[in-house]
Amino acid sequence: MKNHIVINDVGPRDGLQNQPKHLSVHERLTLINALVDAGLPAIEVGAFVSPKAVPAMASTDEIYAQLPKQNGVEYSVLIPNPKGFQTGAALNVSTMSLVVAASSTMNEKNIRMTTAQAMSMCFDVLGRAKSLERNVQAYVATAWACPFEGAVNKSDVFQVTEELLKAGASHIVVADTIGAAAPDAVYTLMSEMAVEFGAQNLSCHFHDTRAMGVANVYAAIQAGVRRFDASIGGLGGCPFAPGATGNVATEDVVLLVEQMGFETGVDMKKLLEASDLATELTGTARGGHAKAWLKQQ
Amino acid sequence: MKNHIVINDVGPRDGLQNQPKHLSVHERLTLINALVDAGLPAIEVGAFVSPKAVPAMASTDEIYAQLPKQNGVEYSVLIPNPKGFQTGAALNVSTMSLVVAASSTMNEKNIRMTTAQAMSMCFDVLGRAKSLERNVQAYVATAWACPFEGAVNKSDVFQVTEELLKAGASHIVVADTIGAAAPDAVYTLMSEMAVEFGAQNLSCHFHDTRAMGVANVYAAIQAGVRRFDASIGGLGGCPFAPGATGNVATEDVVLLVEQMGFETGVDMKKLLEASDLATELTGTARGGHAKAWLKQQ
Repeated sequence: MKNHIVINDVGPRDGLQNQPKHLSVHERLTLINALVDAGLPAIEVGAFVSPKAVPAMASTDEIYAQLPKQNGVEYSVLIPNPKGFQTGAALNVSTMSLVVAASSTMNEKNIRMTTAQAMSMCFDVLGRAKSLERNVQAYVATAWACPFEGAVNKSDVFQVTEELLKAGASHIVVADTIGAAAPDAVYTLMSEMAVEFGAQNLSCHFHDTRAMGVANVYAAIQAGVRRFDASIGGLGGCPFAPGATGNVATEDVVLLVEQMGFETGVDMKKLLEASDLATELTGTARGGHAKAWLKQQ
Repeated sequence: MKNHIVINDVGPRDGLQNQPKHLSVHERLTLINALVDAGLPAIEVGAFVSPKAVPAMASTDEIYAQLPKQNGVEYSVLIPNPKGFQTGAALNVSTMSLVVAASSTMNEKNIRMTTAQAMSMCFDVLGRAKSLERNVQAYVATAWACPFEGAVNKSDVFQVTEELLKAGASHIVVADTIGAAAPDAVYTLMSEMAVEFGAQNLSCHFHDTRAMGVANVYAAIQAGVRRFDASIGGLGGCPFAPGATGNVATEDVVLLVEQMGFETGVDMKKLLEASDLATELTGTARGGHAKAWLKQQ
């Protein structure tokens, strides 16, 4: 497993949720199927959220029901609360993802809860998940910087992570929600977290706002992380985080890690087709920074 | 000096030499002056090459004569041969730059010499520089990969570097000419070169072809390198190297290293003005990847 890196494409959720154009169920399924065809081992396919709050994620239940199963792909769905968990549990969703920010102001702005309230809600969901034997992972958002508070205390990130794991979270995704982290800070935090919690229990989620997305993936690899979120064509952005732009592009991450000698199982030619499809469907996905070169190969 | 990083903007040479539109002397000077105003400590202002071979670099002598002096900026000019050195020596150019590739095929395709012939030419120039007390540095091109040969032997890079330093080169710029290196390979080579030759004698020059430009700067910093080439707005590309795209953008490098705690002396607001100017003059400079975010600050 040392030479394998798992890439979780969050384009169909984090990538689409803030798009000006809302894709149809058919279009979203077409994009997800293109990612499946490209060999992505994990895909975040949607969110069980209020269609009023996030209309782009409406009908995720319909999408989940129509996904190709028995192909080994780990599909995940974001759930904001116990209601989302109930929906996911009823649909037998293989992985559900909770989100809590390490910064309290971010929780207040994003989900109108203090960190304590958000954690309490997570414990509730994780308790239900345990009794129903469901797989629920947790995102620790704004792990390096908060758009409202600035630098985030490492102790807050550690505390939230520890409590979520103790409560039964299957995995922790450490997220630079607004793309504000530099690679030295990524290396420092992830090295220490790998020692404390085990690298196999950790993923990283980077945005490319400050052009450091690929560098941050590299720094996290150096710290032992072997699982990353990325989004096809660099789609993305957080509607509640000022200044946030797209996730680091899946194409760029695959290129980086494969050149470093890791296997991803991804077929780059098909991945570029999925990237073109993302551009066609949304009109905003630019493709990764290496697009011109990749298209020549 | 540990907390200072020197950025050498190569936009006016490496950035412009391959542009479809050839800028006038006045336009090139306007761009250079914008970089001076932005606080760049080093700028590659042109090349003393045949105007038939590289018409975009014609009249570099005129440009050099009109540069603002006594401002502490280190201006460099690329010289391909002894004739170029004579021109530079006559104009009292503060730093001249020789280029030799670690890969023999690259030398043959680029300058129609074997590596041995190219090195012999360099020794000739460096000998003249020593007797005239001129400052001549050397680029070791295709230090990781050659577009014709593929992976380049580390021993070839070491040998060329050692011989150039022995012959009197004031500094070595280790160049990923075609933007093919990954950060792990950058770290490995630069760490070993820093031990062998001293980090203070080394710079790095990266292209962003495979979206790894910023990651490679980070990796080289981890290896001890404190001096980097970059080009304003990501302008660049090598006319003799298939698949090569622009240099890593100065804006992205300044953002990275300053966030890591290094000082550059660069004023980001004025640097973005220079980047806009580069776009306006060439029509091709896209700006660094962090442009959208930087413009919001």
